[in-house]
Amino acid sequence: MAVRLEAMKGVVAAVLTPLREDLSIDRAAFAAHCTRLLDAGCHGLGIFGTTGEANSFSIAERVDAWEALVADGVPAATLVPGTGACALPDAVTLTREALAVGAGAVLALPPFYYKGVSDDGLFAFFAELIERVADDRLRLLLYHIPPMAVIGFSPALIGRLLDAYPGTIAGTKDSSSDAARIEATCREFPQLDVFTGSESLLLDTLRWGGAGCISASVNLNAREARAVYDRFQAGEDAAAEQRALSQVRRAIGDRQLIPALKAIMRARTGDDVWRTLRPPLRPLDAADAAALVAALGD
Amino acid sequence: MAVRLEAMKGVVAAVLTPLREDLSIDRAAFAAHCTRLLDAGCHGLGIFGTTGEANSFSIAERVDAWEALVADGVPAATLVPGTGACALPDAVTLTREALAVGAGAVLALPPFYYKGVSDDGLFAFFAELIERVADDRLRLLLYHIPPMAVIGFSPALIGRLLDAYPGTIAGTKDSSSDAARIEATCREFPQLDVFTGSESLLLDTLRWGGAGCISASVNLNAREARAVYDRFQAGEDAAAEQRALSQVRRAIGDRQLIPALKAIMRARTGDDVWRTLRPPLRPLDAADAAALVAALGD
Repeated sequence: MAVRLEAMKGVVAAVLTPLREDLSIDRAAFAAHCTRLLDAGCHGLGIFGTTGEANSFSIAERVDAWEALVADGVPAATLVPGTGACALPDAVTLTREALAVGAGAVLALPPFYYKGVSDDGLFAFFAELIERVADDRLRLLLYHIPPMAVIGFSPALIGRLLDAYPGTIAGTKDSSSDAARIEATCREFPQLDVFTGSESLLLDTLRWGGAGCISASVNLNAREARAVYDRFQAGEDAAAEQRALSQVRRAIGDRQLIPALKAIMRARTGDDVWRTLRPPLRPLDAADAAALVAALGD
Repeated sequence: MAVRLEAMKGVVAAVLTPLREDLSIDRAAFAAHCTRLLDAGCHGLGIFGTTGEANSFSIAERVDAWEALVADGVPAATLVPGTGACALPDAVTLTREALAVGAGAVLALPPFYYKGVSDDGLFAFFAELIERVADDRLRLLLYHIPPMAVIGFSPALIGRLLDAYPGTIAGTKDSSSDAARIEATCREFPQLDVFTGSESLLLDTLRWGGAGCISASVNLNAREARAVYDRFQAGEDAAAEQRALSQVRRAIGDRQLIPALKAIMRARTGDDVWRTLRPPLRPLDAADAAALVAALGD
């Protein structure tokens, strides 16, 4: 239990997925990027969350990529695969495969096609999922991201799920950017590992008793995020580190996050595997990418 | 060409999917319901659109069901399978399989996970889809349903797709409930088969030059819908038939549409295959179902 929980705390990168021009995943680049992120201090790697363009890949592509990462030397226990799907059988398949790979935890979107669904309906979905997977090793993080999924996890729903599946519902990733909600979740559910979806709130989340961040920008600033985490754990002031950490997201501003992050990655590495996104996402145009890189002072 | 286009005009039911208690599809009930709908006058059958809970089923479940319907005697040319998916390879697989089954046309959602995507990104998605499927038989209906997908097809995007793929982009299903938009689409794109997603606008859509409706309520009132269509085609006044057709949706009011339709189906047939929905959708509670049936005067 202790080892498992440890793998779910701290700095988790919502890992970008490197693509070839034909839209297939560049396996070698993916493993190399994951290894760099761990070397830079990440505790975990969110593979195929929103930032990793999860829903742009088939189930087979996602499972193949998880297996390849482990085969290529990325420790399985560091993986936090995204296993959410609209269809219950797809969510079951992804969850089982993530466990088979040896992942430390999984990140589960709600079934996001229908809107206006009830807490009862979402509870039924997760109850069916957990009971069909039927595996004590399952540590499930509830992925609350209303800007994309529109539907999400109300506090009442989180409470019901925790009551029904206390060993399995391990945490939440909250990408609402709603500081008050994240603080309230930390206070109301101390048994839950609460991750902020934005590293801008990492220090605050740690102060509220949260577990850390699962964040897109950490593709670029894992060291800064780890510095915040380590100083907080040591009881030291981490305000300067948090300011440094927040710089990437400030520079990105209101650009689309995933194209912006890939543009910065490409500028920093010179590697074309960061040029391509699967449609409907598109790369930043060259002028906007240059302006962004300039704003970062790279 | 004429035969194909004929299969895409008129009254198309957005077919409900009958389920067993274990959430699997009841194959016999599905074929029987489809046959009843054709006997009642439907020109076509939308299989696994929103109403059919498409996104609650895996790709394999959807393809198996199409094949079973044809094997069970439902004419393949009447099928309008839903083939939309967030992931391009999934959309390619579903489209190819729908063509392999012999479907008359396919109904394609936009990739609906990411929000705020550009027309360029959506154009790139459909261009990749059409070029990867690479099949002259493909007749694609653009499925515009902002209440669920949030993103959709702007007039500019429809125009770009029509210019690029004039033989393939065959029509649109518009579930915006925006009469002005549907009328404008009919006028701006006379080469497009425009279907209203709500049968409440069937007569209007036909007057504007549209093709018909692809509608959920038609599970219950196919005869009334066909009467509107036939009287319009004969140049006769169909206002009384349209009023009768609109009654189901008026009675449903602001209830969730799919649970409400299944509740009415169950009351009318006495068949428990209409009791179950896949989570996150839930059945109406018994009292609400009874009130709805009473309001319909059943």
